[in-house]
Amino acid sequence: MTDTNMRLRLPVVCIVLEVILIILFGILVEYDSNTDAKKWHANTTIDMDNEFYYRYPSFQDVHVMIFIGFGFLMTFLQRYGFSSVGFNFLIAAFSLQWATIMQGVLHSIHHGSHGVKIHVGVLNMINADFCTGSVLISFGAVLGKTSPIQMLIMAIFEVTLFSVNEFILLEYLGAKDAGGSMTIHTFGAYFGLMVTRVLYRPNLSKSKERNSSVYHSDIFAMIGTIYLWMFWPSFNSAITAQGDDQHRTALNTYYSLAACTLATYGFSALVNHEGKLDMVHIQNAALAGGVAVGTAGEMMLTPFGSMIVGFLAGTISVLGYKYLSPILESKLKIQDTCGVHNLHGMPGVLGAIVGAITAAAASPSVYGLGIVDVFPDIKEDYTASYQASMQIASLAVTLAIALLGGLIVGFLLKLPICGAPPDTLCFEDSVYWEMPGEEEGHGELTTVKTPEETDKLN
Amino acid sequence: MTDTNMRLRLPVVCIVLEVILIILFGILVEYDSNTDAKKWHANTTIDMDNEFYYRYPSFQDVHVMIFIGFGFLMTFLQRYGFSSVGFNFLIAAFSLQWATIMQGVLHSIHHGSHGVKIHVGVLNMINADFCTGSVLISFGAVLGKTSPIQMLIMAIFEVTLFSVNEFILLEYLGAKDAGGSMTIHTFGAYFGLMVTRVLYRPNLSKSKERNSSVYHSDIFAMIGTIYLWMFWPSFNSAITAQGDDQHRTALNTYYSLAACTLATYGFSALVNHEGKLDMVHIQNAALAGGVAVGTAGEMMLTPFGSMIVGFLAGTISVLGYKYLSPILESKLKIQDTCGVHNLHGMPGVLGAIVGAITAAAASPSVYGLGIVDVFPDIKEDYTASYQASMQIASLAVTLAIALLGGLIVGFLLKLPICGAPPDTLCFEDSVYWEMPGEEEGHGELTTVKTPEETDKLN
Amino acid sequence: MTDTNMRLRLPVVCIVLEVILIILFGILVEYDSNTDAKKWHANTTIDMDNEFYYRYPSFQDVHVMIFIGFGFLMTFLQRYGFSSVGFNFLIAAFSLQWATIMQGVLHSIHHGSHGVKIHVGVLNMINADFCTGSVLISFGAVLGKTSPIQMLIMAIFEVTLFSVNEFILLEYLGAKDAGGSMTIHTFGAYFGLMVTRVLYRPNLSKSKERNSSVYHSDIFAMIGTIYLWMFWPSFNSAITAQGDDQHRTALNTYYSLAACTLATYGFSALVNHEGKLDMVHIQNAALAGGVAVGTAGEMMLTPFGSMIVGFLAGTISVLGYKYLSPILESKLKIQDTCGVHNLHGMPGVLGAIVGAITAAAASPSVYGLGIVDVFPDIKEDYTASYQASMQIASLAVTLAIALLGGLIVGFLLKLPICGAPPDTLCFEDSVYWEMPGEEEGHGELTTVKTPEETDKLN
Repeated sequence: MTDTNMRLRLPVVCIVLEVILIILFGILVEYDSNTDAKKWHANTTIDMDNEFYYRYPSFQDVHVMIFIGFGFLMTFLQRYGFSSVGFNFLIAAFSLQWATIMQGVLHSIHHGSHGVKIHVGVLNMINADFCTGSVLISFGAVLGKTSPIQMLIMAIFEVTLFSVNEFILLEYLGAKDAGGSMTIHTFGAYFGLMVTRVLYRPNLSKSKERNSSVYHSDIFAMIGTIYLWMFWPSFNSAITAQGDDQHRTALNTYYSLAACTLATYGFSALVNHEGKLDMVHIQNAALAGGVAVGTAGEMMLTPFGSMIVGFLAGTISVLGYKYLSPILESKLKIQDTCGVHNLHGMPGVLGAIVGAITAAAASPSVYGLGIVDVFPDIKEDYTASYQASMQIASLAVTLAIALLGGLIVGFLLKLPICGAPPDTLCFEDSVYWEMPGEEEGHGELTTVKTPEETDKLN
Repeated sequence: MTDTNMRLRLPVVCIVLEVILIILFGILVEYDSNTDAKKWHANTTIDMDNEFYYRYPSFQDVHVMIFIGFGFLMTFLQRYGFSSVGFNFLIAAFSLQWATIMQGVLHSIHHGSHGVKIHVGVLNMINADFCTGSVLISFGAVLGKTSPIQMLIMAIFEVTLFSVNEFILLEYLGAKDAGGSMTIHTFGAYFGLMVTRVLYRPNLSKSKERNSSVYHSDIFAMIGTIYLWMFWPSFNSAITAQGDDQHRTALNTYYSLAACTLATYGFSALVNHEGKLDMVHIQNAALAGGVAVGTAGEMMLTPFGSMIVGFLAGTISVLGYKYLSPILESKLKIQDTCGVHNLHGMPGVLGAIVGAITAAAASPSVYGLGIVDVFPDIKEDYTASYQASMQIASLAVTLAIALLGGLIVGFLLKLPICGAPPDTLCFEDSVYWEMPGEEEGHGELTTVKTPEETDKLN
Repeated sequence: MTDTNMRLRLPVVCIVLEVILIILFGILVEYDSNTDAKKWHANTTIDMDNEFYYRYPSFQDVHVMIFIGFGFLMTFLQRYGFSSVGFNFLIAAFSLQWATIMQGVLHSIHHGSHGVKIHVGVLNMINADFCTGSVLISFGAVLGKTSPIQMLIMAIFEVTLFSVNEFILLEYLGAKDAGGSMTIHTFGAYFGLMVTRVLYRPNLSKSKERNSSVYHSDIFAMIGTIYLWMFWPSFNSAITAQGDDQHRTALNTYYSLAACTLATYGFSALVNHEGKLDMVHIQNAALAGGVAVGTAGEMMLTPFGSMIVGFLAGTISVLGYKYLSPILESKLKIQDTCGVHNLHGMPGVLGAIVGAITAAAASPSVYGLGIVDVFPDIKEDYTASYQASMQIASLAVTLAIALLGGLIVGFLLKLPICGAPPDTLCFEDSVYWEMPGEEEGHGELTTVKTPEETDKLN
């Protein structure tokens, strides 16, 4: 049985990582021309031209999705609410800093001429949050079975691999993926699934009574769901080109999600023998429509096309939860706590394919002069069908890096020093958190732990 | 006793409705000149002129009000949290699509010249959300006593009638109602009240132990309240003219709500024999100030005038909850679960009257050149007092369509195939939802239903 | 034992205050040139120039922090959730109106030429919310031990003193403090700490079983924490100069908070003998990074500098909770319910010092032409080091006014007519709120109070 005491390990990891980050920021990071007082005032006199006014509201919506959306979505577990929202908070706060460095360094090496310097503004904040989202998807796969140390180590490697994959897709393959169907969702899901496969626990059933929700925890989780759902139009449009592109992407995502929601409710009732709705489906599958238009949302997908994609995404997601997840667990030994395969994996792949098909149909007759914003590479010798093939190649690269990366990182996380919880104490906050007193239904209030609880944890 | 099993009915309704919507979108809906790549780039080179940057932050606030605000406000019921937030989600996701079609078709018939085509952008998204809000108000009146099928059928008809009423008011009568005191609140409330009157259940007291809140459910409901309260300035200003109009409307609403809140706390303590505050008042009446400046908020109401209106709205709302609601139930057989008459009905009518009075006082000496934004019709032969009479006529039309529509739709919803819950199982999630295990206060955790609970539901 | 019945007192106070506010608004408040239809249209034809589009999204984020952030952060107490979010709501709704008057009158006297008139727009809304934030910080210090009457009286005086202090700092001393490290956080914390010192209750331990959290209340509190954390970049940048200043401030705050969070987790585990994380630290100390860059955030602090400041803030905040708060309570008799000294007091002072140091380093070589936005006073005879000394003088003035003001107001609040709760009923909602029925863990549901509970409260 591993030692789960975090007394020295967590402080050392947190503080060392933060000190390293501060040093790297000190060496590498500078304000960009929109955030630097001198540079901005040397270039312009029109304040409204600042990128801030085009992006910051979208950034804040994305920020809510990362910290409230992901954090609360995972509070569905009855005894893991502190860890769900609290480790989400920790991992995200680390990842966004590390992603700033990794994404910035790769970008700087590629574009820079005067040595490696990272120039930061709101786009870096959005991209850092995006990368963080990918890590949180993987977190969903292993939720309840890992220590905060393991999660921080996973984040170190996953942010790195995410940035490499994103760089290959966007810079070398010329892929379009503004909402991250591939870079964020497919990558995060399959990386996390491979990690959880490597960390397979044959005796996880010892904690099975805690691997489920209770009434209030399901309502807390709905806070996460609804915020993710509402702000997904901002997520997909946050880094698209200004003007019609941001506008169109938000619109497409809005209708995709609405169609997805009706599919989710319909199929959730259909697959239940009493015709009852299942909160797991509502909390998760209703969001698949956002994932599935992550690539094509900025394209001329039409609202009609977006709704078809959303409808399909909701359908496969519900069916995945009902029929595929049990098979993945029993046959492939993939214990996917949040079902990220159904919410991010399959809908992400769907989104990649839809993106390729939509790209293949691109033409100046549809996009007019706007084609340079959506497909800057498409010119005489670089056709729409070539773009489509690059989109498919991007999906393949993403799956390869995610699966291979997850495999290696999974083995790293098996080191006993990481302090993973024993099989009997998975999905249990009290392993890593000082617990408050129990609530009582009958008026007496107590702040001490019951003896049984104290025993159980020692 | 009706059969509440949704196994086939809900999937059929959801999927058929969504397929119809997708077909209608395929035939009718196109991007507008702000979301279409070709049209946008043919017209402009200044990205910041895109309507997106004027409206999208407001849209997102409205979106939060619809999905979090309404959804969580209704979670106050102790055993109806899944349904409150979950059916709210379903109905809203359907209604916003259907509203896009209905509002768009009416607008297109009126303005279009080349056949019926609906051109969509962020204004359509806001207007669709607005129409959805009206349906959710009606949902509040019948909350706990209806099946999801009934709610979807109600939404089909209510969206249609809402769109017709809105069209008459805005296009034929030339009424101003940017925040929807009439079109959204008065309409939604009286429509819902008539539906709940028709669906009157003489034996509803069989479920009375569940028709109330518990401690945590009241705190969940406050999430809804506070979000509605905070974002109401965005709601009322979302579709007003750009510039000073949006700014002024947000400002008026801000001060109206603040004044309303003090009135609510004061009167809530006053009407309680121990001087204690009642959560029902705080959750609802404090919002009446937003409803009551829904029409006049964009006008030169002054902050001072807004505060008077807010103060009155909070006062009548608390008094309504305390004294009028019991009479409506006992004498008029109106079982209004959320008290929408007090939050949306009376304050909506107040808002309509305030709007007429404020319109009557309009003059170029107050509005300057800005009068064309607020009252585009007021010219030499179309006086401010004529505008005021049109505002009052609009209120009358709204009440007539709402009451008549609610009457007819109420009878439709009595069809046994709708699967309404029996009197003994109103306000109970387990009728339509797969329930998680019970929470325990003493450390043991269980995921199975207690036998009593299982019995009770069969 | 004082009488806690609010039947007449609360209505009188609320209604009289609101009537006075309405009269003052009627006499003093007018639309500004961005919200007045006539003035706006006389000046411009470009809608996007309206201040609304530069500030309103930031305002809404600040608004969420005030009403959801502060409100839910304080719901951590197990039996004080209604009061936490409900009194927060009441106090804030009052304070924002009163702050509009007080801040406006002082500004008008200073700048006005044609009599005292207050011209309002979105900047007034933000500043009013800021002042409200300061009152809510003080509320955190006395949480659970005061009546709503006391809180409203405190708000009347604190808003007044806040406005005077802010006026002295910004207008006379020429201090920069856009995010309010001094004006909001330091002022609110030390004012509240002095009030709670004067209101010291030697027998508060009679309520100690309620002065703690339970599992769900800690998760509710995390809603407040996460919203404060996410939107702090908007808070600090809401009133800075347009363009690069807003952008840079948001960026600095983003990285400061991320670094602060890692420090918080690290030190929280370090100071616990089992290495477990403490929710109190996570809920509070992780926010200190926002407080500590409240002054310097708009300056050229660099992301690297921001992270160092955030890291220090998180560290001193955790150590404060662990080691200093118990000493303050036992030695200095300061019963600081929420630990505002650790979240707002010390980090606020740190922020003031960082601001002075950063100002001292200002030069045109770093800021270019942008220096006039950040330091409009720095010219030939007004050096950066003079600016720095004014920053330090501002901290001293703030501490003096806060401590002296808190002392006087604390004694005022001891008047028996205020209806403070007895020592045995602190941290208890049922003193001032009509309570719902108890939740049961075993399927039976009841809406009546248990006899013991009824007895206890009478």
